[in-house]
Amino acid sequence: MNTTSFFGDMLQTITDRGRRFLSFGPREDEGDPLGHIEALCETLLSSRGEASGMALAKDILDRWQRFDPSMQREFMGMLLQRFGPRTERLEAAIESYRASQSPAALLELHVAAEPRRQELIRRLNLAPNGIATLVSMREALLKLKVDDPDLEAVDSDFAHLFGSWFNRGFLVLRPVSWSTPADILEKIIRYEAVHHIGGWEELRLRLAPEDRRCFAFFHPQLIDDPLIFVEVALTREIPGNIADLLKEDRGQIKAAEATTAVFYSISNCQEGLRGISFGNFLIKQVVEDLRRELPKLDTFVTLSPVPGFAGWLSRERQSEASEALTQADRSRLAVLDEPDWADRPDVVAAVQPVMTSAAAWYFLKARNSNGKVIDPVARFHLGNGARLERINFLGDRSTKAMRQAYGLMVNYLYKLDDIETNHEAFAGRGEVVAAQAIRRLVPPDRNVRNPVAATTLPTSRPFPLDAERKKANKEFTP
Amino acid sequence: MNTTSFFGDMLQTITDRGRRFLSFGPREDEGDPLGHIEALCETLLSSRGEASGMALAKDILDRWQRFDPSMQREFMGMLLQRFGPRTERLEAAIESYRASQSPAALLELHVAAEPRRQELIRRLNLAPNGIATLVSMREALLKLKVDDPDLEAVDSDFAHLFGSWFNRGFLVLRPVSWSTPADILEKIIRYEAVHHIGGWEELRLRLAPEDRRCFAFFHPQLIDDPLIFVEVALTREIPGNIADLLKEDRGQIKAAEATTAVFYSISNCQEGLRGISFGNFLIKQVVEDLRRELPKLDTFVTLSPVPGFAGWLSRERQSEASEALTQADRSRLAVLDEPDWADRPDVVAAVQPVMTSAAAWYFLKARNSNGKVIDPVARFHLGNGARLERINFLGDRSTKAMRQAYGLMVNYLYKLDDIETNHEAFAGRGEVVAAQAIRRLVPPDRNVRNPVAATTLPTSRPFPLDAERKKANKEFTP
Amino acid sequence: MNTTSFFGDMLQTITDRGRRFLSFGPREDEGDPLGHIEALCETLLSSRGEASGMALAKDILDRWQRFDPSMQREFMGMLLQRFGPRTERLEAAIESYRASQSPAALLELHVAAEPRRQELIRRLNLAPNGIATLVSMREALLKLKVDDPDLEAVDSDFAHLFGSWFNRGFLVLRPVSWSTPADILEKIIRYEAVHHIGGWEELRLRLAPEDRRCFAFFHPQLIDDPLIFVEVALTREIPGNIADLLKEDRGQIKAAEATTAVFYSISNCQEGLRGISFGNFLIKQVVEDLRRELPKLDTFVTLSPVPGFAGWLSRERQSEASEALTQADRSRLAVLDEPDWADRPDVVAAVQPVMTSAAAWYFLKARNSNGKVIDPVARFHLGNGARLERINFLGDRSTKAMRQAYGLMVNYLYKLDDIETNHEAFAGRGEVVAAQAIRRLVPPDRNVRNPVAATTLPTSRPFPLDAERKKANKEFTP
Amino acid sequence: MNTTSFFGDMLQTITDRGRRFLSFGPREDEGDPLGHIEALCETLLSSRGEASGMALAKDILDRWQRFDPSMQREFMGMLLQRFGPRTERLEAAIESYRASQSPAALLELHVAAEPRRQELIRRLNLAPNGIATLVSMREALLKLKVDDPDLEAVDSDFAHLFGSWFNRGFLVLRPVSWSTPADILEKIIRYEAVHHIGGWEELRLRLAPEDRRCFAFFHPQLIDDPLIFVEVALTREIPGNIADLLKEDRGQIKAAEATTAVFYSISNCQEGLRGISFGNFLIKQVVEDLRRELPKLDTFVTLSPVPGFAGWLSRERQSEASEALTQADRSRLAVLDEPDWADRPDVVAAVQPVMTSAAAWYFLKARNSNGKVIDPVARFHLGNGARLERINFLGDRSTKAMRQAYGLMVNYLYKLDDIETNHEAFAGRGEVVAAQAIRRLVPPDRNVRNPVAATTLPTSRPFPLDAERKKANKEFTP
Repeated sequence: MNTTSFFGDMLQTITDRGRRFLSFGPREDEGDPLGHIEALCETLLSSRGEASGMALAKDILDRWQRFDPSMQREFMGMLLQRFGPRTERLEAAIESYRASQSPAALLELHVAAEPRRQELIRRLNLAPNGIATLVSMREALLKLKVDDPDLEAVDSDFAHLFGSWFNRGFLVLRPVSWSTPADILEKIIRYEAVHHIGGWEELRLRLAPEDRRCFAFFHPQLIDDPLIFVEVALTREIPGNIADLLKEDRGQIKAAEATTAVFYSISNCQEGLRGISFGNFLIKQVVEDLRRELPKLDTFVTLSPVPGFAGWLSRERQSEASEALTQADRSRLAVLDEPDWADRPDVVAAVQPVMTSAAAWYFLKARNSNGKVIDPVARFHLGNGARLERINFLGDRSTKAMRQAYGLMVNYLYKLDDIETNHEAFAGRGEVVAAQAIRRLVPPDRNVRNPVAATTLPTSRPFPLDAERKKANKEFTP
Repeated sequence: MNTTSFFGDMLQTITDRGRRFLSFGPREDEGDPLGHIEALCETLLSSRGEASGMALAKDILDRWQRFDPSMQREFMGMLLQRFGPRTERLEAAIESYRASQSPAALLELHVAAEPRRQELIRRLNLAPNGIATLVSMREALLKLKVDDPDLEAVDSDFAHLFGSWFNRGFLVLRPVSWSTPADILEKIIRYEAVHHIGGWEELRLRLAPEDRRCFAFFHPQLIDDPLIFVEVALTREIPGNIADLLKEDRGQIKAAEATTAVFYSISNCQEGLRGISFGNFLIKQVVEDLRRELPKLDTFVTLSPVPGFAGWLSRERQSEASEALTQADRSRLAVLDEPDWADRPDVVAAVQPVMTSAAAWYFLKARNSNGKVIDPVARFHLGNGARLERINFLGDRSTKAMRQAYGLMVNYLYKLDDIETNHEAFAGRGEVVAAQAIRRLVPPDRNVRNPVAATTLPTSRPFPLDAERKKANKEFTP
Repeated sequence: MNTTSFFGDMLQTITDRGRRFLSFGPREDEGDPLGHIEALCETLLSSRGEASGMALAKDILDRWQRFDPSMQREFMGMLLQRFGPRTERLEAAIESYRASQSPAALLELHVAAEPRRQELIRRLNLAPNGIATLVSMREALLKLKVDDPDLEAVDSDFAHLFGSWFNRGFLVLRPVSWSTPADILEKIIRYEAVHHIGGWEELRLRLAPEDRRCFAFFHPQLIDDPLIFVEVALTREIPGNIADLLKEDRGQIKAAEATTAVFYSISNCQEGLRGISFGNFLIKQVVEDLRRELPKLDTFVTLSPVPGFAGWLSRERQSEASEALTQADRSRLAVLDEPDWADRPDVVAAVQPVMTSAAAWYFLKARNSNGKVIDPVARFHLGNGARLERINFLGDRSTKAMRQAYGLMVNYLYKLDDIETNHEAFAGRGEVVAAQAIRRLVPPDRNVRNPVAATTLPTSRPFPLDAERKKANKEFTP
Repeated sequence: MNTTSFFGDMLQTITDRGRRFLSFGPREDEGDPLGHIEALCETLLSSRGEASGMALAKDILDRWQRFDPSMQREFMGMLLQRFGPRTERLEAAIESYRASQSPAALLELHVAAEPRRQELIRRLNLAPNGIATLVSMREALLKLKVDDPDLEAVDSDFAHLFGSWFNRGFLVLRPVSWSTPADILEKIIRYEAVHHIGGWEELRLRLAPEDRRCFAFFHPQLIDDPLIFVEVALTREIPGNIADLLKEDRGQIKAAEATTAVFYSISNCQEGLRGISFGNFLIKQVVEDLRRELPKLDTFVTLSPVPGFAGWLSRERQSEASEALTQADRSRLAVLDEPDWADRPDVVAAVQPVMTSAAAWYFLKARNSNGKVIDPVARFHLGNGARLERINFLGDRSTKAMRQAYGLMVNYLYKLDDIETNHEAFAGRGEVVAAQAIRRLVPPDRNVRNPVAATTLPTSRPFPLDAERKKANKEFTP
């Protein structure tokens, strides 16, 4: 009927294939499950009959899914040890290359250096719904890698193949609405990582009103499972407060009357695709789609958390040598250690100017040990070509936001004509593009401790894995 | 509204993106178009803004499409020379590997040995409809490679990526019928490579009757363009003659009454995907689908040409030492040099037994210089697990078939329960599984000149490129 | 992209039409809104420009939707008084018919007798989404008719047109599952009239497990709104208890292993379509679909409430002359007046045989003043060709079921081969087909008070309005 | 997959239903097929089991489809004679009405006057794909009616039901393009009634170029069969010549650059729906859709034949009393009787001014015996609100156009803002709205023979059957 079921049917059909082509003997592998699965992997790699390949791939993935974490670790170790490149062939290829450096020798060197597990993973994808299992396999691998850095080599092969398979050219952007199938919607509830969705009624409030939108990237092979999604509010002004934006009795407006689209939540869905970035494409494409549908929209802005702020501010408050905070500032901020400070109007009034200035410093001057902007959300949007537009004191009074950022939120502005320039300024020269009102909050007379020069800034590779992004992945927020 | 247009719309939408993100200066590259496109490729490889990546990729592919063959050759030369691995990094990686052979060193060696053009091709796929242009780019490359063997290294990178992108797990099998969109049907007319389709009325005769079927593999990203398709006739017996099968007044039967499904034409569609094999999956999946729909079907068989037969027979006829033909045989076959031999009943009667026996020898005993079965179609079906079922003398009197095979056709039988065994026999031990009636045609007392032993037979790698298959590709037939 | 949105888009597109074609003057109708809407109706009836017709129809329906009940009553009165047949033309037609009785005279009589409001309603359907408003208009009309029987004439015109528009030939049966769009699913929650669905999690339990199904009829023009739906449980035996069937920890089975399909809830959705019956088609078609999908299913049965039982039993308990209950029975049932009787095992044991026998009498012998079976659900299923299969004492302990039926439930069995015979027995001769075990519960020596003879039974017209069915409509249950 | 197959599947599923519910005895009706089918119709009308109703309806329609024209006539006679209203009930209803004139009496009169065949036809629609057979049944009826005017009463019932079923609110407009399923496209070739389509290549030229469009109305129940379609050319000016518009080497333009949309062919598809008009909706909706897609379009115009012109001109040429032609005109037009006049430049030059003036008279002054504009195509477009924009001398040199109109074509202009006014002028006052250049061609000093006054003009009923439109139906042209 719909595309979902079209591909769903295909997959189901494919699922039932192949079994008849190969019947495995009784599963007498209790003694050595790892040895058994290794043998299956070798058979799959050397198999010629592609139908049996399908059955083999399915068998291996089924077994994997029954593994406990300890077995999973052993399996990954096996991939690392036994399914690397063939050493003799590689040695020979190195010799040939040294001898001639011809195209043929280079080609052979590249082929010989490819770990055998790449082809193995490719063939595991033959299994019905194999891609979903492979994605969850990498999710497990990422956890294992924390304690076992050698697994980086295995992860690199997964990441390499996922980069090809989830190439931006293969993704489709689809609106998610109240008439989207429920099995997809329940994933939206589950995957939402920024502003918790408490159930179906709350979801309805985010999808059904005509001044609310949601968009997600899908992959044709994972058509029932979004990869990343963004929630959008259509408003008449740039909001500074998430509670007002989401409250039930907020006074809905007509979509056609909106001037501003607010990206208030972006969530990655597949932990197993960490580092395979789609977020920057997503926002720009949604901007284009919304402009087409609603020509009156002229402002595209986020309402974003500042997850690194509280940590940084605590450190500065404790540092005598802080450049960001004067002694007087530190005194005035002492009240932050009291749990109910935000409920006391006088305290709030006293804290606001200090905290706002400190926030401006946090974005414009503070840098981490790698010389980078500290806030992961800021790095994402600034790297994406947005500019820092406004600082919203006590924009989010939820427990999580109070803990992470003393309630601070910010807006990043996406202005299509400036995106490339902003992006180049940030990625190339490390400059944070910000509204003048924010820049004015940083006293010109204080010296910058961490001068950021374009030439010294190590910049991330644009497409592939990026260590910081990885950390921010699951709870990824604009 | 259908899936086709769903993806079509997506692509169209995507097509128009990105242009606004980057405006290139005036195209003042007349002086050095190659230098200019190389610069663009370098920029694409180093670009950070993904939106500009889309525009850059589109620009490069647009330029490519305006290149004449001579410029195409230069472009490919550039990919070979300038976008290989970085030599210094590779040298360093080799040194590290020699020193430690650690996982990290191996990983770095593999990464360092990867030609930069792989990432370049990956990024070119960002362009709207990029995959289609890349497939046509490889089509051109395959032609260029004939005269320039060094380009094999470039082709290897294309083939590597296409192998990932067109992984079987991503293909969808769809019936092609008279209610398929016309733009896809006109491609069926154009791509048919075995039994020419003379126009829409002939196409209708192959698709609309209830005893005719057609199935094709599609890729989600090339959704309007089939990759490979097979035409099927539903019959009550195994046919020996293509003309009777296709004639207009043939006496249609009810699909539910058919006992036999005849695969009478398989055509690959994309020359640029040569060597990325889907054919064996296709037949087996179609067999499964037809069985499900029509439980009465119990025989699955091809009606196939024998494209290598006439060439082999001519050589045997001229060879005094022929083991396949006696002196008497050669005399009786002398008449084949007369153009109208097949119209003379007495000649036909005399030739039939000799030619049929020779054909049995051709399949069962004759081997090429690599020790392989000569006929490419036979290699495909036998490798696929089918068995040689029947030899049909004068099964196809078309000019092409008379020239290629003196009109000979054969049936290959697909029996699901035997497929794995047959496949292993052929792929593993070089044995041709054939019906007893055919085996009896080869006199036991003549010695086999080319004994085929399982141990000595070089067997092809199962999934990837296979030199013979490549040649048979465009005009690929069951 | 799916059918829903396809038609949705069409409607949306159409919605925005027509407005430009006709601009109405300022709405200066406060003084006489009824006079104004009557004038609009006359204009619509006489309008020639069909684009203006669309705008006019929309305007009239918009005004209607703002009417309060009192204005609605006046509007319906206007339809009755002002939009009946044209009297003069009708008189003339009667004269002509009396004179000649020719086909032409008959035709003119029929045309002349048609109330003008039929054409008016037809033209109101031109408005975007007009059919939905017309259905809700009839819902209001049905309420008004209770106090104003003359409106029957207006209702008859609505029913006549709805009978054409919702002709069985135009309905489509679609499965409703957990991958159905959420906006349709929330209607399932709302419309469920038999066993309350407490929210999305409960809905999920009824749709997502593989041993649960749901099917609904849709009309292409109301594609987002089901007309009627049935919920099905797949089991291994005929259930006697709704709580066990629905409980969360019930022990799910594989669909392929089920032998029995239980229709445990049927709900009509559109009060405005009361009397336009789809229920009997629905069950038979679902039976066919399930058989096709799951060949192991051999039993199709309902688990149904008995909404008329408690009322009848109370009357019998109070009647000295009851034939259904002996004096001893009445004594034993006295305990039913105590609220907690069902929780006392000894009471339950004593009541069970009496109540079960009484229930058998209720179905087999008791008749209402029209000589019909009393229970509306029984009339539906028996009229549909099912047979009464089993009586389930305390099958439903919910408050509602205890009040309506002292917790009694029954199973009706749908055996396809007997459906026509059973149907004819019931509809033609008033015979209730029941399992022998039930028939044996009715003592043969008691005389039947209301002998039901085939010849004397007034039977309902098969397709159209049926007074009893109407009452059972909204809370319609198997 | 797509909507087509969605509904297609539904129908197929339904098709196979019902058979099992009722098995008819051996078809021993050779003796009296009409008596047998009448009995079946009576059974269907009285049937209660709706499943058997489906089987009965299918059986009746199957029998009908085997009838030859003579049996068809008898069948229709039977519907006329035996399935009219019940006489006694009707007589009684007339009496009651005369006595009371109450709403209930009026309702009963209307119900009693309804021919029983209306309900019969409604129930025949239960058969799978019944609507398609009923449409073809009416096609036959329309032919029979020519010789048997009494069948008007039967036709009236079909038309009444079709009017409900094909209500504008149920139709969907869909683009027809080169990616439309081939089975629909072959119907476009077949149904094209204005400018013959010679085959698939010609069809491709009308659908595939980006400056060509086609739109059709579909009914959800006849989803594979268009009801009416219009072909559109996108141009930069108003064309005066059909050959230039259609020629293969015409110099295609970009759709976005077009300023003018030319409706050059409108064809009704279903003869059995004659008189159920969709054409005026079609054009206006296509205008809206095109404007939305291509904002640069500012002119919407037809290029239309003038099918009544040659007949009228011949009569005028032979009439001494012609007001349209002077004696001198008649002399100059004498050459029209010579077959090759249009190939002789001198003749063409001499004829042009006379014929153009005569054409202006034909449209502006000439009227038929009913006082109406003579040309059926003119009546359609003028009634639709278009204005006569330009007269194109020798705009179509095809044999058919030379015979019908001496090659004359005209343009009708659709200007949305004037449509209602133009329509009212024509429909209400009989005024032909024409461009000033055309009005000037009619000499003011000649008296109008047929003065057309708004008050005296009989105007057609807007929606329903219209005798003239019927005639123009099959070959219906803008």
